[in-house]
Amino acid sequence: MDKQQLFENIKRKKTFLCVGLDTDIKKIPEHLLKEEDPIFAFNKAIIDATADLCIAYKPNLAFYESMGVKGWIAFEKTVKYIKDNYPDQFIIADAKRGDIGNTSAMYARTFFEELDIDSVTVAPYMGEDSVTPFLTYDNKWVILLALTSNKGSHDFQLTEDANGERLFEKVLRKSQEWANDDRMMYVVGATQGRAFEDIRKIVPDHFLLVPGIGAQGGSLEEVCKYGMNSTCGLIVNSSRGIIYVDKTEKFAEAARTAAQEVQAQMAEQLKRVINNQ
Amino acid sequence: MDKQQLFENIKRKKTFLCVGLDTDIKKIPEHLLKEEDPIFAFNKAIIDATADLCIAYKPNLAFYESMGVKGWIAFEKTVKYIKDNYPDQFIIADAKRGDIGNTSAMYARTFFEELDIDSVTVAPYMGEDSVTPFLTYDNKWVILLALTSNKGSHDFQLTEDANGERLFEKVLRKSQEWANDDRMMYVVGATQGRAFEDIRKIVPDHFLLVPGIGAQGGSLEEVCKYGMNSTCGLIVNSSRGIIYVDKTEKFAEAARTAAQEVQAQMAEQLKRVINNQ
Repeated sequence: MDKQQLFENIKRKKTFLCVGLDTDIKKIPEHLLKEEDPIFAFNKAIIDATADLCIAYKPNLAFYESMGVKGWIAFEKTVKYIKDNYPDQFIIADAKRGDIGNTSAMYARTFFEELDIDSVTVAPYMGEDSVTPFLTYDNKWVILLALTSNKGSHDFQLTEDANGERLFEKVLRKSQEWANDDRMMYVVGATQGRAFEDIRKIVPDHFLLVPGIGAQGGSLEEVCKYGMNSTCGLIVNSSRGIIYVDKTEKFAEAARTAAQEVQAQMAEQLKRVINNQ
Repeated sequence: MDKQQLFENIKRKKTFLCVGLDTDIKKIPEHLLKEEDPIFAFNKAIIDATADLCIAYKPNLAFYESMGVKGWIAFEKTVKYIKDNYPDQFIIADAKRGDIGNTSAMYARTFFEELDIDSVTVAPYMGEDSVTPFLTYDNKWVILLALTSNKGSHDFQLTEDANGERLFEKVLRKSQEWANDDRMMYVVGATQGRAFEDIRKIVPDHFLLVPGIGAQGGSLEEVCKYGMNSTCGLIVNSSRGIIYVDKTEKFAEAARTAAQEVQAQMAEQLKRVINNQ
C-alpha cells in the first residue's frame, strides 16, 4: 500500500485507528478455549467487528511467539484472513526487529515476501545496515522506533548529544538519509504530548504510528493537536482498550462499541484535514 | 546456568566458542533438502560435530522465522536436541527483542518458560521496563546490545552526550542498575578492537557475547587481549565461519575442523586465565 492509498482509506472511512491484536490466550473469553484455534477465533471475531472502523491491524508478534508453533499458525491465519476479507487494511507486524544486515534481510523476507505484510516495526539501535534491508521492497514500509510510549523511553531516547540533539531526534534526522516518507514511518508514543511538536519540525510529512492511547494513558486530542499534518499523518493504535473491554460471549460487540467511540473522535479530528483539502 | 557453571565449562573444555546456528535453507548442503526437516537435520549434524569444542549455541531467530511455522518447529526441535543431548551447553536465543513491559514479558515467557532457553539477546533502545521483564527468571540471562559488530553501530551507539559519554557506555552503566553480572551480559562486536578496553572499565566482571570473528573480520587475539577477564568473561561466536565452510556431504566434518582451529586458539588464550587461578 502506498501513502496516497492509506490517506484515501483514512478519508473514506473517517478513521485513522489501528487495532492492536495483542492476543493473549490468558485474556480471551473462556468460551473460545474450546475452539480448535482460540487465538484465531478471537482475532477473526474482533476483525469482523471492527474492520469498517479502522484502517490498520497490528498483530504484536510477542503474543504469537509465546505460543510457539501454534502461535505462528494463528498469526499466519490472521494475516491471511485480513488480506482475503479486508484487503484495504494496512497490516503492521509489530516485531521491533533489527539486526546485522544479513539477519535483517531474513526478517524482511519473512514479513514482506512470505507473509506479504505491509510494514514492520524496527528498532534503530544498530543503525543503517540493520534498517536498509527492510527498505528494498516496493510499497512496503519500515516503522522505526523513535520516541516510544513507555517509561523507559526516558533512559536513552532523550539523551542529548554535545549539540543538544536528543537521540530520538537524531534517529528521525539520520534515518531520512535511508528512505523518505513513502517508505518510512516512525513510532511515537501518545504519552509524549508536546514532543509531537518537536517531531513535526523534523518529519513534517511522515506518518507516525502512535501507540499508547487507552491503557497507557495517552490523549487522542493532544496527539492530533500537535501531531496531525495535511495528510493526517497519524495511525493511532489501541489494543487493550478495544479488544479486552468485555470477556463474555459479547466481547466482539463490546470491542465494536469501543472502536466506534474512538472512530467518532477521530472523525471529528479529521475534519480539519478533510475540510482543508 | 549460573556464571560459575559457565566458567567451569570453559575451563574444562578449554573453549569459549559459541556456534551460531544461522541456518539458511538456501545455504545448507543440497543432499539435506530431501530430509523431512532439512534445517533440523543440518543443525543436528553441526551440533554433534562441534559440541565438545564449544560451550554455547546461538540459534538466530530470524533464520527460523523466515521459514514460518516449519522454521519454528525446526527451532524448537533444535533447542530440545541440545538440551537432551548436551545439557552443559548454554543456549542463546539471538532474538534482539525489546518492547514495552507487558510485551517483553510475553517474549520472556516464550524463551524462558516455554522453551527453557538460558538467555536471550535484547535491544536497549526502549529502556528499563523493556529489559527488566527478562530479569525475573532464576539462572536466565539477558544479553543486552551494547556495541555491535556492524558498520551501523557508528550511527547511534557512538553518539556522545554533553558529558562525553557515548551511548553504548551509557547503556553499560545504566543497565547495571537493573541487574548485575549474574544475570546480565553484553553484546560487543569483535570488530570493535580497543573499545574493549573502555568497556572493561565499566563492566570489568561481566561476560560479553562477542560476534564478528570470521566472516565479519574481527580478531580473536585482539578481543582476548583487551576483553578477557579473570573468569574469561568472553563468549565468542562464529556462525558462517564454521557452519558453512563446506557444502558437500562432508559439511559436518568440515565444520568440526573449523571449530577445532578456533578451539585451539582459544585454549592458548585461556592459559593466562587458568594459570592465574
